[in-house]
Amino acid sequence: MSPVSSQHPALQAHSSAADCRHLIRSGSWNRPTAGLAARYVQVNLVMLPDAEAADFLRFAQRNPKPCPLLAVSEPGEFTLPSMGADIDLRRDVPRYRVFEHGQYKAEVDDITALWRDDLVTFAIGCSFTFEHTLLDNGIAIRHIDEGRNVPMYRTNIQTQPAGKFGGDMVVTMRPFKAADAIRAVQITSRFPGVHGAPVHIGDPALIGIADLAHPDFGDAVTVAADELPVFWACGATPQVSLLQAKPSFCITHAPGYMLITDQLNVDYAVL
Amino acid sequence: MSPVSSQHPALQAHSSAADCRHLIRSGSWNRPTAGLAARYVQVNLVMLPDAEAADFLRFAQRNPKPCPLLAVSEPGEFTLPSMGADIDLRRDVPRYRVFEHGQYKAEVDDITALWRDDLVTFAIGCSFTFEHTLLDNGIAIRHIDEGRNVPMYRTNIQTQPAGKFGGDMVVTMRPFKAADAIRAVQITSRFPGVHGAPVHIGDPALIGIADLAHPDFGDAVTVAADELPVFWACGATPQVSLLQAKPSFCITHAPGYMLITDQLNVDYAVL
Repeated sequence: MSPVSSQHPALQAHSSAADCRHLIRSGSWNRPTAGLAARYVQVNLVMLPDAEAADFLRFAQRNPKPCPLLAVSEPGEFTLPSMGADIDLRRDVPRYRVFEHGQYKAEVDDITALWRDDLVTFAIGCSFTFEHTLLDNGIAIRHIDEGRNVPMYRTNIQTQPAGKFGGDMVVTMRPFKAADAIRAVQITSRFPGVHGAPVHIGDPALIGIADLAHPDFGDAVTVAADELPVFWACGATPQVSLLQAKPSFCITHAPGYMLITDQLNVDYAVL
Repeated sequence: MSPVSSQHPALQAHSSAADCRHLIRSGSWNRPTAGLAARYVQVNLVMLPDAEAADFLRFAQRNPKPCPLLAVSEPGEFTLPSMGADIDLRRDVPRYRVFEHGQYKAEVDDITALWRDDLVTFAIGCSFTFEHTLLDNGIAIRHIDEGRNVPMYRTNIQTQPAGKFGGDMVVTMRPFKAADAIRAVQITSRFPGVHGAPVHIGDPALIGIADLAHPDFGDAVTVAADELPVFWACGATPQVSLLQAKPSFCITHAPGYMLITDQLNVDYAVL
Protein backbone atom coordinates (compact mmCIF):
# COMPACT_ATOMS: atom_id res chain seq x y z
CA MET A 1 0.00 0.00 0.00
CA SER A 2 1.57 3.30 -1.04
CA PRO A 3 1.85 5.97 1.64
CA VAL A 4 -1.26 8.05 1.82
CA SER A 5 0.81 11.22 2.08
CA SER A 6 2.11 10.73 -1.45
CA GLN A 7 -1.46 10.82 -2.75
CA HIS A 8 -2.63 13.97 -1.02
CA PRO A 9 -0.41 16.15 1.12
CA ALA A 10 -3.30 17.16 3.37
CA LEU A 11 -4.42 13.66 4.38
CA GLN A 12 -2.34 11.09 6.20
CA ALA A 13 -2.63 8.03 8.38
CA HIS A 14 -2.53 10.25 11.45
CA SER A 15 -5.13 12.74 10.17
CA SER A 16 -8.28 13.03 12.21
CA ALA A 17 -11.41 11.39 10.89
CA ALA A 18 -13.18 14.76 10.80
CA ASP A 19 -10.39 16.33 8.69
CA CYS A 20 -10.64 13.45 6.24
CA ARG A 21 -14.42 13.78 5.98
CA HIS A 22 -14.20 17.52 5.40
CA LEU A 23 -11.72 17.14 2.55
CA ILE A 24 -13.83 14.37 1.04
CA ARG A 25 -16.95 16.50 1.40
CA SER A 26 -15.23 19.40 -0.37
CA GLY A 27 -14.45 17.12 -3.32
CA SER A 28 -10.67 17.24 -2.74
CA TRP A 29 -10.25 13.49 -2.20
CA ASN A 30 -11.59 10.98 -4.71
CA ARG A 31 -9.40 7.96 -3.94
CA PRO A 32 -9.90 4.87 -1.75
CA THR A 33 -9.80 5.50 1.98
CA ALA A 34 -7.47 2.63 3.03
CA GLY A 35 -4.71 4.00 5.22
CA LEU A 36 -6.48 7.29 6.02
CA ALA A 37 -7.03 8.18 9.70
CA ALA A 38 -5.76 4.73 10.63
CA ARG A 39 -6.94 4.75 14.25
CA TYR A 40 -10.56 5.34 13.25
CA VAL A 41 -13.30 2.94 12.24
CA GLN A 42 -14.24 2.93 8.56
CA VAL A 43 -17.61 1.51 7.56
CA ASN A 44 -19.41 0.04 4.57
CA LEU A 45 -22.70 1.78 3.80
CA VAL A 46 -25.97 0.38 2.52
CA MET A 47 -28.95 2.73 2.02
CA LEU A 48 -32.41 1.28 1.41
CA PRO A 49 -35.99 2.57 1.35
CA ASP A 50 -37.69 2.11 4.74
CA ALA A 51 -40.09 -0.46 3.23
CA GLU A 52 -37.17 -2.74 2.36
CA ALA A 53 -35.00 -1.88 5.36
CA ALA A 54 -36.71 -4.14 7.90
CA ASP A 55 -35.84 -7.31 5.98
CA PHE A 56 -32.25 -6.16 5.61
CA LEU A 57 -32.07 -5.34 9.33
CA ARG A 58 -33.23 -8.87 10.16
CA PHE A 59 -30.72 -10.26 7.64
CA ALA A 60 -27.91 -8.38 9.40
CA GLN A 61 -29.11 -9.48 12.84
CA ARG A 62 -28.98 -13.10 11.71
CA ASN A 63 -25.60 -12.82 10.05
CA PRO A 64 -23.48 -10.69 12.38
CA LYS A 65 -20.15 -12.08 11.16
CA PRO A 66 -20.47 -11.04 7.48
CA CYS A 67 -22.80 -8.13 8.24
CA PRO A 68 -21.72 -6.47 11.51
CA LEU A 69 -24.09 -3.53 12.00
CA LEU A 70 -22.42 -0.64 13.78
CA ALA A 71 -25.24 1.85 13.27
CA VAL A 72 -28.65 2.25 11.61
CA SER A 73 -30.06 5.68 10.82
CA GLU A 74 -33.58 6.87 11.40
CA PRO A 75 -35.54 6.83 8.10
CA GLY A 76 -34.70 9.91 6.03
CA GLU A 77 -31.89 11.11 8.31
CA PHE A 78 -28.55 11.75 6.64
CA THR A 79 -26.65 12.14 9.90
CA LEU A 80 -25.24 9.27 11.97
CA PRO A 81 -24.62 10.84 15.39
CA SER A 82 -23.56 7.62 17.12
CA MET A 83 -20.61 7.33 14.71
CA GLY A 84 -19.58 11.00 14.39
CA ALA A 85 -20.90 14.42 15.34
CA ASP A 86 -21.00 16.04 11.90
CA ILE A 87 -21.34 13.14 9.48
CA ASP A 88 -23.28 13.96 6.30
CA LEU A 89 -24.14 10.61 4.75
CA ARG A 90 -24.87 12.29 1.39
CA ARG A 91 -21.42 13.79 0.88
CA ASP A 92 -18.80 12.22 3.18
CA VAL A 93 -18.01 9.15 1.07
CA PRO A 94 -15.62 9.70 -1.87
CA ARG A 95 -17.59 7.47 -4.21
CA TYR A 96 -21.11 6.00 -4.06
CA ARG A 97 -22.82 3.38 -6.20
CA VAL A 98 -26.48 3.65 -7.13
CA PHE A 99 -28.65 0.61 -7.91
CA GLU A 100 -32.26 0.25 -9.09
CA HIS A 101 -33.95 -3.16 -8.90
CA GLY A 102 -30.54 -4.77 -8.42
CA GLN A 103 -29.09 -3.12 -11.54
CA TYR A 104 -26.02 -0.91 -11.25
CA LYS A 105 -26.89 2.57 -12.47
CA ALA A 106 -24.08 5.01 -11.66
CA GLU A 107 -21.10 5.97 -9.56
CA VAL A 108 -21.30 9.46 -8.04
CA ASP A 109 -19.35 11.42 -5.44
CA ASP A 110 -22.39 13.13 -3.88
CA ILE A 111 -25.92 11.79 -3.42
CA THR A 112 -27.61 14.99 -2.24
CA ALA A 113 -29.71 15.11 -5.41
CA LEU A 114 -30.67 11.44 -5.04
CA TRP A 115 -31.62 11.65 -1.36
CA ARG A 116 -35.06 10.37 -0.35
CA ASP A 117 -36.96 10.94 2.86
CA ASP A 118 -37.47 7.21 3.32
CA LEU A 119 -33.83 6.09 3.08
CA VAL A 120 -32.44 4.09 6.00
CA THR A 121 -28.64 3.91 6.19
CA PHE A 122 -26.82 0.86 7.53
CA ALA A 123 -23.21 1.28 8.66
CA ILE A 124 -21.45 -2.09 8.48
CA GLY A 125 -18.10 -2.81 10.11
CA CYS A 126 -15.00 -3.44 8.02
CA SER A 127 -11.90 -5.57 8.45
CA PHE A 128 -9.69 -2.46 8.52
CA THR A 129 -10.57 -2.36 12.23
CA PHE A 130 -9.06 -5.72 13.10
CA GLU A 131 -6.24 -5.37 10.57
CA HIS A 132 -5.13 -2.24 12.44
CA THR A 133 -4.79 -4.32 15.61
CA LEU A 134 -3.08 -7.23 13.81
CA LEU A 135 -0.47 -4.76 12.50
CA ASP A 136 -0.09 -3.22 15.98
CA ASN A 137 0.69 -6.73 17.22
CA GLY A 138 3.46 -7.14 14.68
CA ILE A 139 1.52 -9.51 12.42
CA ALA A 140 2.24 -8.81 8.75
CA ILE A 141 -0.76 -8.83 6.39
CA ARG A 142 0.10 -10.20 2.99
CA HIS A 143 -2.18 -8.12 0.77
CA ILE A 144 -0.95 -4.92 2.42
CA ASP A 145 2.69 -5.97 1.99
CA GLU A 146 2.01 -6.80 -1.66
CA GLY A 147 0.09 -3.57 -2.29
CA ARG A 148 -3.09 -5.36 -3.34
CA ASN A 149 -6.73 -5.49 -2.33
CA VAL A 150 -7.62 -8.29 0.05
CA PRO A 151 -8.66 -11.46 -1.84
CA MET A 152 -12.37 -12.28 -1.45
CA TYR A 153 -14.13 -15.54 -2.32
CA ARG A 154 -17.70 -16.75 -2.56
CA THR A 155 -18.12 -19.87 -0.41
CA ASN A 156 -20.69 -22.62 0.00
CA ILE A 157 -21.43 -21.32 3.52
CA GLN A 158 -25.05 -20.18 3.43
CA THR A 159 -26.18 -17.04 5.20
CA GLN A 160 -29.35 -17.19 7.29
CA PRO A 161 -31.97 -15.62 5.02
CA ALA A 162 -34.45 -12.89 6.00
CA GLY A 163 -37.21 -11.87 3.62
CA LYS A 164 -35.65 -11.65 0.18
CA PHE A 165 -32.09 -11.31 1.51
CA GLY A 166 -29.84 -14.38 1.69
CA GLY A 167 -27.26 -16.26 -0.37
CA ASP A 168 -23.63 -17.35 -0.10
CA MET A 169 -21.22 -15.95 2.44
CA VAL A 170 -18.23 -14.10 1.00
CA VAL A 171 -14.94 -14.40 2.90
CA THR A 172 -11.61 -12.60 2.90
CA MET A 173 -8.39 -14.62 3.09
CA ARG A 174 -5.11 -13.79 4.81
CA PRO A 175 -2.29 -16.37 4.82
CA PHE A 176 -0.19 -16.87 7.98
CA LYS A 177 2.35 -19.26 9.42
CA ALA A 178 0.82 -21.36 12.20
CA ALA A 179 1.94 -19.19 15.14
CA ASP A 180 0.58 -16.01 13.54
CA ALA A 181 -2.62 -17.83 12.52
CA ILE A 182 -3.21 -18.75 16.17
CA ARG A 183 -2.46 -15.19 17.30
CA ALA A 184 -4.78 -13.83 14.58
CA VAL A 185 -7.61 -16.04 15.87
CA GLN A 186 -7.05 -14.64 19.37
CA ILE A 187 -6.84 -11.01 18.28
CA THR A 188 -9.80 -10.99 15.91
CA SER A 189 -11.94 -12.84 18.48
CA ARG A 190 -11.67 -9.67 20.57
CA PHE A 191 -13.56 -7.80 17.80
CA PRO A 192 -16.91 -9.61 17.55
CA GLY A 193 -18.50 -6.38 16.27
CA VAL A 194 -16.28 -6.22 13.17
CA HIS A 195 -16.35 -9.74 11.66
CA GLY A 196 -14.79 -11.36 14.76
CA ALA A 197 -13.00 -14.71 14.72
CA PRO A 198 -12.29 -16.50 11.43
CA VAL A 199 -14.98 -18.71 9.92
CA HIS A 200 -12.47 -21.20 8.47
CA ILE A 201 -8.79 -22.09 8.53
CA GLY A 202 -6.92 -24.42 6.17
CA ASP A 203 -8.30 -26.31 3.18
CA PRO A 204 -10.23 -23.87 0.93
CA ALA A 205 -12.14 -26.74 -0.75
CA LEU A 206 -13.98 -27.45 2.51
CA ILE A 207 -15.88 -24.18 2.14
CA GLY A 208 -16.33 -24.44 -1.61
CA ILE A 209 -13.35 -22.38 -2.81
CA ALA A 210 -11.85 -24.05 -5.87
CA ASP A 211 -8.66 -22.02 -6.31
CA LEU A 212 -7.11 -19.43 -4.02
CA ALA A 213 -5.31 -17.95 -7.03
CA HIS A 214 -8.62 -16.83 -8.50
CA PRO A 215 -10.56 -14.75 -5.98
CA ASP A 216 -14.07 -13.64 -6.89
CA PHE A 217 -13.31 -10.07 -5.79
CA GLY A 218 -10.07 -8.26 -4.94
CA ASP A 219 -6.62 -9.58 -5.83
CA ALA A 220 -4.79 -12.88 -5.38
CA VAL A 221 -1.87 -12.85 -2.94
CA THR A 222 1.09 -15.16 -2.38
CA VAL A 223 0.45 -18.17 -0.10
CA ALA A 224 3.66 -19.99 0.91
CA ALA A 225 3.80 -23.76 1.35
CA ASP A 226 4.23 -23.46 5.11
CA GLU A 227 1.29 -21.06 5.51
CA LEU A 228 -2.36 -21.63 6.37
CA PRO A 229 -5.03 -19.62 4.61
CA VAL A 230 -7.29 -18.04 7.24
CA PHE A 231 -10.79 -16.94 6.23
CA TRP A 232 -12.98 -14.22 7.74
CA ALA A 233 -16.60 -13.37 6.95
CA CYS A 234 -16.59 -10.38 4.63
CA GLY A 235 -18.68 -7.23 4.28
CA ALA A 236 -19.05 -8.01 0.58
CA THR A 237 -21.62 -10.63 1.66
CA PRO A 238 -24.45 -8.08 2.09
CA GLN A 239 -23.48 -6.49 -1.24
CA VAL A 240 -23.90 -9.86 -3.00
CA SER A 241 -27.15 -10.42 -1.16
CA LEU A 242 -28.40 -7.01 -2.31
CA LEU A 243 -27.67 -7.82 -5.95
CA GLN A 244 -29.74 -10.99 -5.59
CA ALA A 245 -32.58 -9.40 -3.60
CA LYS A 246 -32.95 -6.55 -6.12
CA PRO A 247 -34.46 -3.89 -3.84
CA SER A 248 -36.27 -1.14 -5.74
CA PHE A 249 -33.57 1.40 -4.85
CA CYS A 250 -30.22 1.15 -3.11
CA ILE A 251 -27.11 3.25 -2.62
CA THR A 252 -23.84 1.82 -1.32
CA HIS A 253 -20.29 3.11 -1.01
CA ALA A 254 -18.03 2.05 -3.89
CA PRO A 255 -15.71 -0.78 -2.74
CA GLY A 256 -12.70 0.73 -0.96
CA TYR A 257 -14.29 4.19 -0.74
CA MET A 258 -15.55 4.02 2.82
CA LEU A 259 -17.10 6.34 5.38
CA ILE A 260 -14.50 7.37 7.99
CA THR A 261 -16.12 7.68 11.43
CA ASP A 262 -15.05 9.26 14.72
CA GLN A 263 -15.12 5.89 16.49
CA LEU A 264 -11.75 4.42 17.49
CA ASN A 265 -10.89 0.92 16.27
CA VAL A 266 -9.75 -0.03 19.77
CA ASP A 267 -13.19 0.77 21.18
CA TYR A 268 -14.55 -2.27 19.33
CA ALA A 269 -12.30 -4.70 21.25
CA VAL A 270 -14.29 -6.48 23.96
CA LEU A 271 -11.26 -7.50 26.01
CA MET B 1 -31.94 -21.05 44.99
CA SER B 2 -33.62 -24.30 45.95
CA PRO B 3 -32.68 -27.35 43.93
CA VAL B 4 -34.81 -27.66 40.84
CA SER B 5 -35.24 -31.37 41.45
CA SER B 6 -37.22 -30.67 44.61
CA GLN B 7 -39.75 -28.73 42.55
CA HIS B 8 -40.37 -31.26 39.82
CA PRO B 9 -38.81 -34.70 39.73
CA ALA B 10 -38.70 -34.78 35.94
CA LEU B 11 -36.74 -31.54 35.41
CA GLN B 12 -33.26 -30.84 36.70
CA ALA B 13 -30.24 -28.67 36.04
CA HIS B 14 -28.84 -31.39 33.80
CA SER B 15 -32.07 -31.93 31.85
CA SER B 16 -31.90 -31.21 28.14
CA ALA B 17 -33.44 -28.02 26.87
CA ALA B 18 -35.82 -30.00 24.65
CA ASP B 19 -37.05 -32.09 27.62
CA CYS B 20 -37.74 -28.90 29.56
CA ARG B 21 -39.63 -27.34 26.67
CA HIS B 22 -41.73 -30.45 26.18
CA LEU B 23 -42.78 -30.56 29.83
CA ILE B 24 -43.54 -26.84 29.77
CA ARG B 25 -45.53 -27.26 26.56
CA SER B 26 -47.56 -30.06 28.14
CA GLY B 27 -48.49 -27.76 31.01
CA SER B 28 -46.54 -29.77 33.61
CA TRP B 29 -44.19 -26.95 34.64
CA ASN B 30 -45.54 -23.56 35.68
CA ARG B 31 -42.63 -22.24 37.74
CA PRO B 32 -39.67 -19.95 36.92
CA THR B 33 -37.01 -21.52 34.74
CA ALA B 34 -33.90 -20.44 36.70
CA GLY B 35 -31.68 -23.47 37.25
CA LEU B 36 -33.32 -25.63 34.57
CA ALA B 37 -31.08 -27.07 31.82
CA ALA B 38 -28.22 -25.00 33.21
CA ARG B 39 -25.87 -25.39 30.23
CA TYR B 40 -28.41 -23.93 27.81
CA VAL B 41 -29.20 -20.35 26.88
CA GLN B 42 -32.47 -18.96 28.23
CA VAL B 43 -33.95 -15.91 26.53
CA ASN B 44 -36.33 -13.05 27.20
CA LEU B 45 -39.10 -12.76 24.60
CA VAL B 46 -40.79 -9.70 23.12
CA MET B 47 -43.47 -10.13 20.47
CA LEU B 48 -44.70 -7.13 18.49
CA PRO B 49 -46.80 -6.53 15.38
CA ASP B 50 -44.63 -6.20 12.28
CA ALA B 51 -45.59 -2.53 11.92
CA GLU B 52 -44.00 -1.75 15.29
CA ALA B 53 -41.17 -4.28 15.07
CA ALA B 54 -38.83 -2.23 12.87
CA ASP B 55 -38.48 0.54 15.49
CA PHE B 56 -37.84 -2.02 18.21
CA LEU B 57 -35.25 -3.76 16.03
CA ARG B 58 -33.41 -0.45 15.57
CA PHE B 59 -33.70 0.19 19.33
CA ALA B 60 -32.06 -3.18 20.03
CA GLN B 61 -29.34 -2.58 17.44
CA ARG B 62 -28.47 0.72 19.13
CA ASN B 63 -28.53 -0.70 22.64
CA PRO B 64 -26.84 -4.10 22.42
CA LYS B 65 -25.79 -4.17 26.08
CA PRO B 66 -29.28 -3.94 27.63
CA CYS B 67 -31.00 -5.50 24.62
CA PRO B 68 -28.80 -8.27 23.18
CA LEU B 69 -30.77 -9.74 20.30
CA LEU B 70 -30.04 -13.43 19.82
CA ALA B 71 -32.75 -14.07 17.24
CA VAL B 72 -35.63 -12.38 15.41
CA SER B 73 -38.44 -14.40 13.85
CA GLU B 74 -39.98 -13.90 10.47
CA PRO B 75 -43.34 -12.08 10.81
CA GLY B 76 -46.05 -14.53 11.82
CA GLU B 77 -43.69 -17.47 12.40
CA PHE B 78 -43.94 -19.15 15.80
CA THR B 79 -40.78 -21.22 15.34
CA LEU B 80 -37.25 -20.01 16.01
CA PRO B 81 -35.04 -22.50 14.16
CA SER B 82 -31.76 -20.74 14.86
CA MET B 83 -32.29 -21.26 18.61
CA GLY B 84 -33.83 -24.75 18.63
CA ALA B 85 -35.24 -27.26 16.15
CA ASP B 86 -38.72 -27.69 17.58
CA ILE B 87 -39.42 -24.44 19.44
CA ASP B 88 -43.08 -23.39 19.53
CA LEU B 89 -43.08 -19.77 20.62
CA ARG B 90 -46.79 -19.96 21.50
CA ARG B 91 -46.48 -22.72 24.09
CA ASP B 92 -42.88 -23.24 25.24
CA VAL B 93 -42.78 -20.47 27.86
CA PRO B 94 -44.36 -21.31 31.24
CA ARG B 95 -45.96 -17.89 31.61
CA TYR B 96 -46.59 -15.04 29.17
CA ARG B 97 -47.74 -11.46 29.73
CA VAL B 98 -50.09 -9.72 27.32
CA PHE B 99 -50.16 -5.93 26.87
CA GLU B 100 -52.37 -3.61 24.81
CA HIS B 101 -51.32 0.00 24.29
CA GLY B 102 -48.81 -0.37 27.12
CA GLN B 103 -51.43 -1.64 29.57
CA TYR B 104 -50.99 -5.01 31.22
CA LYS B 105 -53.94 -7.23 30.29
CA ALA B 106 -53.29 -10.82 31.38
CA GLU B 107 -50.89 -13.59 32.28
CA VAL B 108 -51.42 -16.83 30.36
CA ASP B 109 -49.49 -20.08 29.88
CA ASP B 110 -50.32 -20.50 26.19
CA ILE B 111 -50.78 -17.81 23.52
CA THR B 112 -52.03 -20.02 20.70
CA ALA B 113 -55.44 -18.32 20.82
CA LEU B 114 -53.81 -14.86 20.81
CA TRP B 115 -51.42 -15.53 17.94
CA ARG B 116 -51.43 -13.10 15.02
CA ASP B 117 -49.96 -13.53 11.56
CA ASP B 118 -48.05 -10.25 11.89
CA LEU B 119 -46.23 -10.96 15.17
CA VAL B 120 -42.44 -10.69 15.13
CA THR B 121 -40.66 -12.37 18.05
CA PHE B 122 -37.44 -11.00 19.51
CA ALA B 123 -35.26 -13.35 21.60
CA ILE B 124 -33.11 -11.30 23.95
CA GLY B 125 -30.13 -12.70 25.84
CA CYS B 126 -30.20 -13.08 29.60
CA SER B 127 -27.60 -12.86 32.35
CA PHE B 128 -28.12 -16.54 33.22
CA THR B 129 -25.61 -17.18 30.41
CA PHE B 130 -22.74 -15.28 31.97
CA GLU B 131 -23.74 -16.25 35.54
CA HIS B 132 -23.29 -19.89 34.52
CA THR B 133 -19.69 -19.12 33.54
CA LEU B 134 -19.06 -17.01 36.66
CA LEU B 135 -20.17 -19.98 38.79
CA ASP B 136 -18.01 -22.35 36.72
CA ASN B 137 -15.08 -20.09 37.56
CA GLY B 138 -15.75 -20.40 41.27
CA ILE B 139 -17.19 -16.89 41.66
CA ALA B 140 -20.10 -16.87 44.10
CA ILE B 141 -23.16 -14.83 43.09
CA ARG B 142 -24.84 -13.20 46.04
CA HIS B 143 -28.49 -13.30 44.96
CA ILE B 144 -28.17 -17.00 44.15
CA ASP B 145 -26.55 -17.71 47.52
CA GLU B 146 -29.29 -15.74 49.25
CA GLY B 147 -32.09 -17.42 47.26
CA ARG B 148 -33.38 -14.12 45.84
CA ASN B 149 -34.00 -12.54 42.47
CA VAL B 150 -31.18 -10.39 41.17
CA PRO B 151 -31.60 -6.73 42.26
CA MET B 152 -32.42 -4.40 39.36
CA TYR B 153 -32.29 -0.59 39.33
CA ARG B 154 -33.36 2.16 36.99
CA THR B 155 -30.38 4.43 36.26
CA ASN B 156 -29.80 7.86 34.75
CA ILE B 157 -27.96 6.21 31.84
CA GLN B 158 -30.04 6.97 28.76
CA THR B 159 -30.57 4.39 26.04
CA GLN B 160 -30.17 5.47 22.42
CA PRO B 161 -33.76 5.98 21.23
CA ALA B 162 -35.27 4.59 18.02
CA GLY B 163 -38.74 5.64 16.94
CA LYS B 164 -40.90 5.62 20.05
CA PHE B 165 -38.58 3.31 22.00
CA GLY B 166 -36.06 4.76 24.47
CA GLY B 167 -35.76 5.69 28.13
CA ASP B 168 -33.56 4.83 31.11
CA MET B 169 -31.25 1.85 31.21
CA VAL B 170 -32.03 -0.74 33.87
CA VAL B 171 -29.07 -2.54 35.45
CA THR B 172 -28.55 -5.62 37.56
CA MET B 173 -26.14 -5.49 40.52
CA ARG B 174 -23.86 -8.18 41.90
CA PRO B 175 -21.48 -7.35 44.78
CA PHE B 176 -17.93 -8.72 44.76
CA LYS B 177 -14.63 -8.29 46.56
CA ALA B 178 -12.09 -6.52 44.35
CA ALA B 179 -10.35 -9.62 43.00
CA ASP B 180 -13.64 -11.25 42.00
CA ALA B 181 -14.88 -7.95 40.55
CA ILE B 182 -11.84 -7.85 38.27
CA ARG B 183 -12.33 -11.49 37.29
CA ALA B 184 -16.04 -10.84 36.65
CA VAL B 185 -15.13 -7.98 34.28
CA GLN B 186 -12.84 -10.32 32.37
CA ILE B 187 -15.29 -13.20 32.19
CA THR B 188 -18.37 -11.20 31.21
CA SER B 189 -16.35 -9.31 28.58
CA ARG B 190 -16.10 -12.64 26.78
CA PHE B 191 -19.92 -12.61 26.37
CA PRO B 192 -20.64 -9.45 24.37
CA GLY B 193 -23.77 -11.10 22.99
CA VAL B 194 -25.38 -11.47 26.42
CA HIS B 195 -24.94 -8.09 28.17
CA GLY B 196 -21.12 -8.24 28.08
CA ALA B 197 -18.86 -6.25 30.37
CA PRO B 198 -20.31 -4.24 33.27
CA VAL B 199 -21.55 -0.70 32.59
CA HIS B 200 -20.51 0.59 36.03
CA ILE B 201 -18.54 -0.40 39.10
CA GLY B 202 -18.51 1.27 42.51
CA ASP B 203 -20.55 4.30 43.63
CA PRO B 204 -24.23 3.75 42.74
CA ALA B 205 -24.98 7.49 42.94
CA LEU B 206 -22.84 8.13 39.85
CA ILE B 207 -25.45 6.35 37.71
CA GLY B 208 -28.44 7.75 39.55
CA ILE B 209 -29.13 4.93 42.00
CA ALA B 210 -30.15 6.40 45.37
CA ASP B 211 -30.16 3.31 47.56
CA LEU B 212 -28.94 -0.19 46.81
CA ALA B 213 -31.26 -1.51 49.52
CA HIS B 214 -34.29 -0.50 47.46
CA PRO B 215 -34.08 -1.99 43.99
CA ASP B 216 -36.75 -1.03 41.45
CA PHE B 217 -37.25 -4.69 40.48
CA GLY B 218 -36.10 -7.96 42.07
CA ASP B 219 -34.78 -8.25 45.61
CA ALA B 220 -32.13 -6.45 47.65
CA VAL B 221 -29.04 -8.48 48.55
CA THR B 222 -26.32 -8.09 51.17
CA VAL B 223 -23.39 -5.85 50.17
CA ALA B 224 -20.43 -6.09 52.58
CA ALA B 225 -18.25 -3.10 53.47
CA ASP B 226 -15.27 -4.52 51.58
CA GLU B 227 -17.27 -5.24 48.43
CA LEU B 228 -17.82 -3.27 45.23
CA PRO B 229 -21.23 -3.25 43.61
CA VAL B 230 -20.82 -4.20 39.94
CA PHE B 231 -23.57 -3.23 37.48
CA TRP B 232 -24.53 -4.87 34.20
CA ALA B 233 -27.02 -3.66 31.58
CA CYS B 234 -30.26 -5.59 32.12
CA GLY B 235 -32.84 -7.16 29.86
CA ALA B 236 -35.54 -5.37 31.86
CA THR B 237 -34.53 -2.24 29.92
CA PRO B 238 -36.51 -3.16 26.80
CA GLN B 239 -39.49 -4.10 29.01
CA VAL B 240 -39.46 -0.61 30.57
CA SER B 241 -39.08 0.93 27.13
CA LEU B 242 -42.08 -1.08 25.91
CA LEU B 243 -44.25 0.22 28.74
CA GLN B 244 -43.34 3.77 27.75
CA ALA B 245 -43.67 3.25 23.99
CA LYS B 246 -47.13 1.68 24.39
CA PRO B 247 -47.23 -0.45 21.22
CA SER B 248 -50.74 -1.43 20.15
CA PHE B 249 -50.13 -5.07 21.09
CA CYS B 250 -47.29 -6.89 22.79
CA ILE B 251 -46.62 -10.26 24.39
CA THR B 252 -43.60 -10.93 26.60
CA HIS B 253 -42.50 -13.78 28.85
CA ALA B 254 -43.35 -13.19 32.52
CA PRO B 255 -40.18 -12.19 34.43
CA GLY B 256 -38.25 -15.34 35.36
CA TYR B 257 -40.37 -17.58 33.10
CA MET B 258 -38.01 -17.76 30.15
CA LEU B 259 -37.71 -19.67 26.88
CA ILE B 260 -35.09 -22.42 27.16
CA THR B 261 -33.21 -22.81 23.87
CA ASP B 262 -30.93 -25.50 22.44
CA GLN B 263 -27.99 -23.07 22.28
CA LEU B 264 -25.16 -23.69 24.73
CA ASN B 265 -24.11 -20.84 27.02
CA VAL B 266 -20.45 -21.47 26.17
CA ASP B 267 -21.12 -20.88 22.49
CA TYR B 268 -21.70 -17.20 23.28
CA ALA B 269 -18.16 -16.71 24.59
CA VAL B 270 -16.00 -14.97 21.98
CA LEU B 271 -12.68 -16.05 23.46
